[in-house]
Amino acid sequence: MSTGGRCGTIHGVGLGPGDPELMSVRADRLLRNARHVAFFRKAGRAGQARRIVEGLLPADATEIPMEYPVTTEIPVSDPAYNAALSAFYGDCTERLRSLAKAGEDVVVLCEGDPFFYGSFMHLYTRLRDAVPVEVVPAITGMSGAWTATGAPVTWGDDILTVLMGTLPQDRLTEAMARSDALVVMKIGRHIDKVKTALKAAGKFDAAWLIEYATMDGQTVQRLAEAGEGITPYFSIVIVHGQGRRP
Amino acid sequence: MSTGGRCGTIHGVGLGPGDPELMSVRADRLLRNARHVAFFRKAGRAGQARRIVEGLLPADATEIPMEYPVTTEIPVSDPAYNAALSAFYGDCTERLRSLAKAGEDVVVLCEGDPFFYGSFMHLYTRLRDAVPVEVVPAITGMSGAWTATGAPVTWGDDILTVLMGTLPQDRLTEAMARSDALVVMKIGRHIDKVKTALKAAGKFDAAWLIEYATMDGQTVQRLAEAGEGITPYFSIVIVHGQGRRP
Repeated sequence: MSTGGRCGTIHGVGLGPGDPELMSVRADRLLRNARHVAFFRKAGRAGQARRIVEGLLPADATEIPMEYPVTTEIPVSDPAYNAALSAFYGDCTERLRSLAKAGEDVVVLCEGDPFFYGSFMHLYTRLRDAVPVEVVPAITGMSGAWTATGAPVTWGDDILTVLMGTLPQDRLTEAMARSDALVVMKIGRHIDKVKTALKAAGKFDAAWLIEYATMDGQTVQRLAEAGEGITPYFSIVIVHGQGRRP
Repeated sequence: MSTGGRCGTIHGVGLGPGDPELMSVRADRLLRNARHVAFFRKAGRAGQARRIVEGLLPADATEIPMEYPVTTEIPVSDPAYNAALSAFYGDCTERLRSLAKAGEDVVVLCEGDPFFYGSFMHLYTRLRDAVPVEVVPAITGMSGAWTATGAPVTWGDDILTVLMGTLPQDRLTEAMARSDALVVMKIGRHIDKVKTALKAAGKFDAAWLIEYATMDGQTVQRLAEAGEGITPYFSIVIVHGQGRRP
């Protein structure tokens, strides 16, 4: 596909926590002028990233959905899981690289901030030595969540620790006990483990659960009052720091 | 000052890491329509927050600089330090509260994200029960810094810990040793202590120093190659996580 002419740029554009007004001015401008827009989604779903930009893209922009392979049958610890994802990211990379080599700019939609967890980095590391890649940082989902609680997350010299609910319970408990302020993400079906770890660390009663931060359906409640059951994958738990405050 | 009419709103507006294009669409809109704009600064300085919005404010907006009291003679641990700051924040609160009670909206400029360290929260907690206060989250300075390094800060289920350089050395070392990814802020004259703690935790060689992230004069270098001496207060140290990557 290489034309020998100008190479296009892949823009990894962070969309922020979900409210389109919380995108950066740069992200907004890139989206409104995009010719090719790529985004991850689950098969058969519209995709959260695509939903955030609804109404912003030019009518003639080409859309490139990148559908995750179905891996629900494969344990995350199985090498086959990593292999399936690796092949998928390789395929996505090839599509984007071909467009860039043909001189086309591509915007890749990224929920939250591209370099803070998330999937774009798996394309980034495969693309960056082949074609120009620019990354636009964004407001993190956790920032949307702590703002929704109406209280500062960190004061003075509070230590903040960010934990994934997918970690083993003992690692969660240990890290929770040693930190002042906490953010727990990727909770979903790990909610009971996260609750147990928070209790063991003495922080359960101080924890807040935020669902769909900055989006329609946002809820903010004390975790202790949130009831049982599975919470959405987009739920975030926050424990506020209590540092020095003049 | 209460008029019995509509009460104004205090908007705590996060400006992000420094590049005006990295402000949110909402922040940009509030600034371009602002009538009263308040911001912190050191006496005799223009103020970093005010500098970020240069050229964005309406020509007839009234500006309300809030100048920190000079506390360089008072140790942070001295109760007089907290008392001086508390009186200062009380005075600022009174000015903003009076404007809001008179029906005026006020934009308060906040570097970074308002609820993530920073000074606005000291006004927020004093104002929120008296007048309407709205907070606009923003891209954090640390996000600007890790984006500048050109590498993702966290992968998979990496633990990220955010530390202030003002912490005691033993607390820094312990927290650094236990985390996968690290952010260290408020470094300034604490740089030697931060370096020593990173070495003790075995993470010095993996550390990056970012100065003036996303701003004119941005530098990105390995901390080990950064030389001696005091770095600006806006410097951030990043250690990237090494988590699972398909």
